[in-house]
Amino acid sequence: MSLERFFNPESVAIVGASRQPGKVGYEILTNMVDAGYEGKIFPVNPKADKIGQLKCYGDLEAIGEVPELVIIVIPAKIVPAVMDQCAAIGVKAVIIITAGFKEIGEQGRQLEQKVVQIAKQAGIRVIGPNCLGVVATTNKLNASFGGDLPREGTIGYLSQSGALLSAILDMANADDIGFSKLVSIGNKADVDELDAIEALGQDPDTKVIAGYLESIANGGAFVRQAERISQTKPILLMKSGSTEAGAKAASSHTGSLAGSETAYECVFERAGIIRCDSIKAQFDFAQALANQPLPKGPGVAVITNAGGPGIMAADAIEQQGLVFAKLADETMTKLASNLPAPANVHNPIDVLGDALADRYELALSVVLDDPNVDTVLVLLTPQAMTASAATAEAIVKVANQKPNKPVLACFLGARKVDEGIKILRKGNIPQYDSPESAVNTIKVIADYVRWRSRPKRVVKLFAVNRRKVQNLIERYLRAQSREIGEMESKEILEAYGFVTPKGSIATTAEQAVNTAEQLGYPVVLKIWSPDILHKSDVGGVKLGIGSAQEVRDAFDLMMYRIPGKLPNANILGVFVQQMCQKGKEVILGMHRDPHFGPLMMFGMGGTMVEVLKDVSFYLAPITSDEAKQMLANTRTYKILQGVRGEEGVDIDAIAEGLQRLSQLVTEFPQIQEMDINPLVVGPEGTTPIAVDARISVEQV
Amino acid sequence: MSLERFFNPESVAIVGASRQPGKVGYEILTNMVDAGYEGKIFPVNPKADKIGQLKCYGDLEAIGEVPELVIIVIPAKIVPAVMDQCAAIGVKAVIIITAGFKEIGEQGRQLEQKVVQIAKQAGIRVIGPNCLGVVATTNKLNASFGGDLPREGTIGYLSQSGALLSAILDMANADDIGFSKLVSIGNKADVDELDAIEALGQDPDTKVIAGYLESIANGGAFVRQAERISQTKPILLMKSGSTEAGAKAASSHTGSLAGSETAYECVFERAGIIRCDSIKAQFDFAQALANQPLPKGPGVAVITNAGGPGIMAADAIEQQGLVFAKLADETMTKLASNLPAPANVHNPIDVLGDALADRYELALSVVLDDPNVDTVLVLLTPQAMTASAATAEAIVKVANQKPNKPVLACFLGARKVDEGIKILRKGNIPQYDSPESAVNTIKVIADYVRWRSRPKRVVKLFAVNRRKVQNLIERYLRAQSREIGEMESKEILEAYGFVTPKGSIATTAEQAVNTAEQLGYPVVLKIWSPDILHKSDVGGVKLGIGSAQEVRDAFDLMMYRIPGKLPNANILGVFVQQMCQKGKEVILGMHRDPHFGPLMMFGMGGTMVEVLKDVSFYLAPITSDEAKQMLANTRTYKILQGVRGEEGVDIDAIAEGLQRLSQLVTEFPQIQEMDINPLVVGPEGTTPIAVDARISVEQV
Repeated sequence: MSLERFFNPESVAIVGASRQPGKVGYEILTNMVDAGYEGKIFPVNPKADKIGQLKCYGDLEAIGEVPELVIIVIPAKIVPAVMDQCAAIGVKAVIIITAGFKEIGEQGRQLEQKVVQIAKQAGIRVIGPNCLGVVATTNKLNASFGGDLPREGTIGYLSQSGALLSAILDMANADDIGFSKLVSIGNKADVDELDAIEALGQDPDTKVIAGYLESIANGGAFVRQAERISQTKPILLMKSGSTEAGAKAASSHTGSLAGSETAYECVFERAGIIRCDSIKAQFDFAQALANQPLPKGPGVAVITNAGGPGIMAADAIEQQGLVFAKLADETMTKLASNLPAPANVHNPIDVLGDALADRYELALSVVLDDPNVDTVLVLLTPQAMTASAATAEAIVKVANQKPNKPVLACFLGARKVDEGIKILRKGNIPQYDSPESAVNTIKVIADYVRWRSRPKRVVKLFAVNRRKVQNLIERYLRAQSREIGEMESKEILEAYGFVTPKGSIATTAEQAVNTAEQLGYPVVLKIWSPDILHKSDVGGVKLGIGSAQEVRDAFDLMMYRIPGKLPNANILGVFVQQMCQKGKEVILGMHRDPHFGPLMMFGMGGTMVEVLKDVSFYLAPITSDEAKQMLANTRTYKILQGVRGEEGVDIDAIAEGLQRLSQLVTEFPQIQEMDINPLVVGPEGTTPIAVDARISVEQV
Repeated sequence: MSLERFFNPESVAIVGASRQPGKVGYEILTNMVDAGYEGKIFPVNPKADKIGQLKCYGDLEAIGEVPELVIIVIPAKIVPAVMDQCAAIGVKAVIIITAGFKEIGEQGRQLEQKVVQIAKQAGIRVIGPNCLGVVATTNKLNASFGGDLPREGTIGYLSQSGALLSAILDMANADDIGFSKLVSIGNKADVDELDAIEALGQDPDTKVIAGYLESIANGGAFVRQAERISQTKPILLMKSGSTEAGAKAASSHTGSLAGSETAYECVFERAGIIRCDSIKAQFDFAQALANQPLPKGPGVAVITNAGGPGIMAADAIEQQGLVFAKLADETMTKLASNLPAPANVHNPIDVLGDALADRYELALSVVLDDPNVDTVLVLLTPQAMTASAATAEAIVKVANQKPNKPVLACFLGARKVDEGIKILRKGNIPQYDSPESAVNTIKVIADYVRWRSRPKRVVKLFAVNRRKVQNLIERYLRAQSREIGEMESKEILEAYGFVTPKGSIATTAEQAVNTAEQLGYPVVLKIWSPDILHKSDVGGVKLGIGSAQEVRDAFDLMMYRIPGKLPNANILGVFVQQMCQKGKEVILGMHRDPHFGPLMMFGMGGTMVEVLKDVSFYLAPITSDEAKQMLANTRTYKILQGVRGEEGVDIDAIAEGLQRLSQLVTEFPQIQEMDINPLVVGPEGTTPIAVDARISVEQV
């Protein structure tokens, strides 16, 4: 949606405008006037005729025309009445600043519902309630009580916390950081985070979208839209609080391994959203993205006037896995012939402690021409001769002359570099308080650039027997059964193209021997009971059985021992199963997040998976590239590729398994959780066998 | 050593004092005078009679008395001549500011050696050359060109980078952070990091030692002294650059798994040093440690006037593994009866957006009395009614009244909270720019407190056959052989109490069968060659051989295949060995760092150890507690304890193995690297078997 009426209204009415300093109704009116808003302002307050220079109206109708935007700052109880008035005169956009709604409990919730109802019926869009307001610097609109209108800039900001936004505004003003728009979404009764992000996505004045969120309402749409918008405008979010999915008891490995943050991590990764851990990190990243071009490659060069910070930057570049640029010979020759002899012309380039602006200017200019350099970080420490202001001017000048590569600066210190930092900021050169912060920013941008240039997402659709799965699941749901039995789980897997081991149930030892003889040795015996989820925990799995006598022994031992351990388990017999080819065991899984839908999981199988928690997640449906990336994201990936003379396994076959599973859980929203554990994978060209599976379903 | 002459001299001569602004000799003289130094100042410069109000001397002798401290700021070339003068008149402490020594190459190195020689002969202690100088706020001594004398405080700082120190000073001045002493150690020609740390350790004005280092000279002494000092004064270090040990080619697993940072991580852990990644983090930690008491327990309470930052703090507390305090009922009752109804009286305590100082004062006072609370973090965001200055005053007041628990503050924002932040700083309440930074600080302090209360280190000495190992190693070194053979490696292990599997070498298949029959099946066959380090890579290990025929097959296959793969390997036969009891394979190792000596390693054995890099290191000699901690520090520790019905292994037996290995490598500095891989460990009460070992030695 567009929030144009909120960002650029021709007239604004303030219901609850006050002449009493300290009141919010006074703050907002003052902020509106002080910002130099060029449209009409209508204060509404029955107790005043005039506030300052402005005529004051008794109610909205008394204005005599329809204000394009109405700001409400009156007690919560009487908000519905004013909303009725808005509806009556045809207002289409309302900001409700007032608190005392959903956030205070049941009574407030009802009041908020009433407001939403009126708005819906009248086609009014509402921002808030319980919010700080809206700011649009380009239109000199400060419809907020967040303080002075900030400097005009290209960062659009949305916040679910008004208090945090006011702190952010204050910090940004002090650091001279500019914004295009700011939206405080408050209780999100109508306009929510997605509306705000979409509006900022459309806004031509906004280059970077930043925000603070505590919850995300419509998960699916959020992912789709954020992914689309991230492709052209970076989205930087602070996200606090956790999804309730994490707290829910889980019956599958996948469920128990998915932490409360897993879904958000998947969403952010998929949608290319840059997660920020603090306001400072968000400012750090936003500054560079808003004011500098994206780098074309990975090479980073550092220019410094002191060894220490240069080493700190080099350490950070190495730790972050970035490329410390190897300078071209020509660059080093030029530097050597123009800098004093003791200067270091290798990266990090040391222009020496007595460097003035000219050496920085020369070094930056030469280094920006180097084909191996994609990003330049300029460090300065205040030493006896250092000219921080002139150096800043030189950096701004050169960066403007050669605007195709990002230039970042880190002037260390405070008062001695203050003037220089101001010049850098005015000149749109991002400034960092430590080499580490600057390098972190370069790393985050490199990841974003990689995300933007990822291959087009193509989700493959396999030919499957959907009808069969449909019938099977419906049968379970009719019987009010949540856990699909082992037999039927295998049928489901087979319908989606997985191969499962042959076998059947035996209720006597001799029947087990007969089955084993038909399958051929070695075989596996597994206890067969709907009440036993972790069979091996109770001695209910015996592998590698090689003879009839061993089958009898294993059968009798299970029948003798397990009822002793689990007297209430209903034991139906023993499953006699073909022993798998040798191979590696992996686990494929799915855990459905209530907001964002199915999360795919991959990990090494066996007991190690639980101990190491070496698993990776991705939002379904997944592409072939994403499936392979899931494998590569585990620490144990190398084992699948083959180590120390051992042959590797068929990576593509596992990736295909993940895609088939992804298709299954996408097509059947009834499936809440499932594991294929283990999937036994052999060398390239062999077919993986889905040995065991657990599927739980729910009516949706 | 004490640096008393540097910190508190009765008189100071400045050789190279200048009347020309911009010159370092001018800056230092001005700084000395401006700081209000109360001793005598003697400017020395043959070209002037007077500088400012001070009489100027032609040379040191002309002063007519012996200055207690001499600062040298003349060109490098003539420094030795001035040092000779210092020696002649009996000066005992010299700061050489001048650059152009070791740091510029061979010529400078020679000049520096000359200076050191003069100093040693005359018993002069030297700080520098190539340094920023020394500051002692308590004595109003500013013998530096780092700018204004900082505020008096309890942080002592040492830096290997003068430029960085000048940036740090500038930042500290802007944030009103106080120091006791600052030492710029420069090229460390004489006084080094250890001297400085020891001096700050002894200094009664210093409560916290902070510093920036690029290298550590005397590793052993550094560890010992730092560990001793950390017990009473926290040491906070930024360390950049890497040890050369990391770059060295390694022949053992342990060597190849020890990264360039491993030794420093071990040293910092052992000595309780708090590592800081940036100046900001260092200031964050130092502020709290210098100004607040250490917490008595893990419980953290948060007080806030806005939900968002409260959630951010709660998230960070959970992520850092800290304890989010559960408030006592009494506390919540008191809060509820004194705060407005909508306030949240659970942790995080929300005093609401319109809170003035009184609500903060009440909440802080009540919460500090709660027995479940050990640390309090106070958050404030600037909202319409917020009184940041009054609130800061209230916090300072309550914290002074109840001084036994640490109180930290995070006033978010800039100009609107500026005054409040100043009051907090003056009142010694540490202030953070984000909830995350504050929580990180709480975490670092919790770790330090845990370190301080660790059990006394007692290194157990086992009865061993030291003589035997001595002879064996000497025999190898005489033969100029670096790699100890498998047979002798086992002898060494046995001499130190390890049990190794029985077996012997066979040169024919029939001999192998005979040995196998004597040992009893199953047996293991291993190729026997001094040239093959990774036997399994070339098919040189065959496990679980159960019959005479299998012995013959395995023997012949190795003899046929391996010479084809490694035509140059000298193959001496096959080692026939008892097959171990079943158990888990672990690796115990040692890698000798050139600066810090033997680093012990523990990890799970097998190919997994290389893939997962799931290993832990510790500085030898280790105690029983440390050995157990090494085990617990691996991700796979749970597997050793037993998972999903599997029995665990004898943890104590592994820990004893680590201690025995630690004793071996401590007693024999000739051992450069070694692995016991695998050590096969069975259930509690069984003896681990050291199946294979690799030891390399060097003449020392």
